[in-house]
Amino acid sequence: MRKRLLVIGSAYPKEEFDFLGRYAETHWLDEMDGEGLESLLPTIDCVLVNFWPSELGPERLAKMSRLSFVQSGLAGVNQIPLRNLGEGVVVCSNAGAYSDEVGEYAWGLLLAAAKKIVKYDRAVRTKGFARPPTPLLGREVMTLKGRTLGVMGYGGIGRSVADIGRAFGMRIMVYSRREVNEEGVAAFRGERGLGQMLPQCDVLVLALPLTKSTTGMLGKDELELMKRDSVIVNIARAEIVDRRALYNHLVRNGQFIFATDVWWSKDGQESYAPELPFLELDNFIGTPHASGPSAVVGGRPLRFALENIERFLKGEQPRNVVRREEYV
Amino acid sequence: MRKRLLVIGSAYPKEEFDFLGRYAETHWLDEMDGEGLESLLPTIDCVLVNFWPSELGPERLAKMSRLSFVQSGLAGVNQIPLRNLGEGVVVCSNAGAYSDEVGEYAWGLLLAAAKKIVKYDRAVRTKGFARPPTPLLGREVMTLKGRTLGVMGYGGIGRSVADIGRAFGMRIMVYSRREVNEEGVAAFRGERGLGQMLPQCDVLVLALPLTKSTTGMLGKDELELMKRDSVIVNIARAEIVDRRALYNHLVRNGQFIFATDVWWSKDGQESYAPELPFLELDNFIGTPHASGPSAVVGGRPLRFALENIERFLKGEQPRNVVRREEYV
Repeated sequence: MRKRLLVIGSAYPKEEFDFLGRYAETHWLDEMDGEGLESLLPTIDCVLVNFWPSELGPERLAKMSRLSFVQSGLAGVNQIPLRNLGEGVVVCSNAGAYSDEVGEYAWGLLLAAAKKIVKYDRAVRTKGFARPPTPLLGREVMTLKGRTLGVMGYGGIGRSVADIGRAFGMRIMVYSRREVNEEGVAAFRGERGLGQMLPQCDVLVLALPLTKSTTGMLGKDELELMKRDSVIVNIARAEIVDRRALYNHLVRNGQFIFATDVWWSKDGQESYAPELPFLELDNFIGTPHASGPSAVVGGRPLRFALENIERFLKGEQPRNVVRREEYV
Repeated sequence: MRKRLLVIGSAYPKEEFDFLGRYAETHWLDEMDGEGLESLLPTIDCVLVNFWPSELGPERLAKMSRLSFVQSGLAGVNQIPLRNLGEGVVVCSNAGAYSDEVGEYAWGLLLAAAKKIVKYDRAVRTKGFARPPTPLLGREVMTLKGRTLGVMGYGGIGRSVADIGRAFGMRIMVYSRREVNEEGVAAFRGERGLGQMLPQCDVLVLALPLTKSTTGMLGKDELELMKRDSVIVNIARAEIVDRRALYNHLVRNGQFIFATDVWWSKDGQESYAPELPFLELDNFIGTPHASGPSAVVGGRPLRFALENIERFLKGEQPRNVVRREEYV
């Protein structure tokens, strides 16, 4: 008997799902009324989802007695209400599907910060730019060759960031929960490792999943371990950084730069109007979570997700199975 | 007998010149009055200069009867009045001294353009950013992997740009006056070669010297050969691009981006307030010629220049000898 897949989200090209037809019947949440959904719930085996919808609250979830597999379309699964899902439900992230594009984007933010591109473009546009003497102007620009790049989280995205860092002639340091043994990579683990790595980094890229243990991982103490003129790039999830501690740190350290593509959530959604006035700071760079969407355009995230659903449907071992205890 | 070196420019640390003491007496233009300069002119053998000073016009130059060597502190020598110098005067550029820093900076501009960092940061700061649906947002962002990087001018800077491009998984095309035979590099020469290369580039980095033949090299016809959504980065000299043709092209092609660290001259000086309203365009990114100064800070340009002056003083063959006929 064919299984049943519920797809949450409307932007997918339907023909991409055709190859799953032998294993499953696909249903689209967006095309259902409440009654249709109610009758379907007990028959659904698996779900494809980016952002968990309000229509599937705990009550309805309880009715999904056959549900055994949830595939995230996003690399991060922090939006999925794992505590409301039965322990028997396998949840998979879409790690790896975004590596190239998000890695490239991280470098865009990194260089915009290190080379002062955003700041200088803004200065020139005021049409009153007075050029300081050459050595003063040049001193603001960070040369990367020979400096140290720290990467927190060494999955697909972190690896892509580190590989490019090598081409810039940077020393590579990696903070990972896994053991990393790679030539030319200095690896750090645990709280003590973090404390050893942070003071050495000129640039730090956050590429960690948002879990119980990474939430607020960079707070006041960690920021103060860093060099006063270093750069943090966040292409992971905003909540990895304690926003109040960061804001205070940026105000007190004008040469410290924070460049982010991800934003702290308000009412369950990322908000580009943060509660603290980051947008008034010259040493803050923000872009509207464009890195992931740039990968979606290429089609790989959907393809990766569907291939993993196929593994589940065929009874094979799916990839990127999430460890529940890291979230609940 | 020791020779005499005239140094033009004030920002140099004097102790860096000490090692030349056995071969030459060093004089500093900034420390001289008109009379002192007049009496010194006939005794000067060589000159170190970034920007040619108004104090050394044709009349005074005519009095520099011993002058036989001019070393530029800058990579480009377009500021040096070759037509007023005798044909026997050897002029050397400082090519290679800026390669790492300017190459890195080019990547800062390139990614700021390709990833829309400057545009998005500006949009978010207006605090009214309305997020378009994911696929629309992502479509604006250029993914570099698998795309084509064109580099015009394959000296130190061009090579540095190309090497980093490889780490991004880009195809590399090079336009050079020299023959280039390198694995993984498609090389083009001459007008016909340029016409073949331009339509294939997604990103084009200008790293050519400004000579008679490169002035205005990118005009209306060349711009129109390029893809409508491509990016040009200029870290060379502004005058390589025809400003009127570029302005019209940017106005007509909103997805075409021009990102520059160099500016068209007004009264002999780069002007950050260009005559055409580039600064009002969303698809123009401009920074105040910060790439070179970021190299100066590291000290390599001065060191390279002094080492070349030492070669001249010791009677060795200096490097980077400029071919007069390319400029006069």
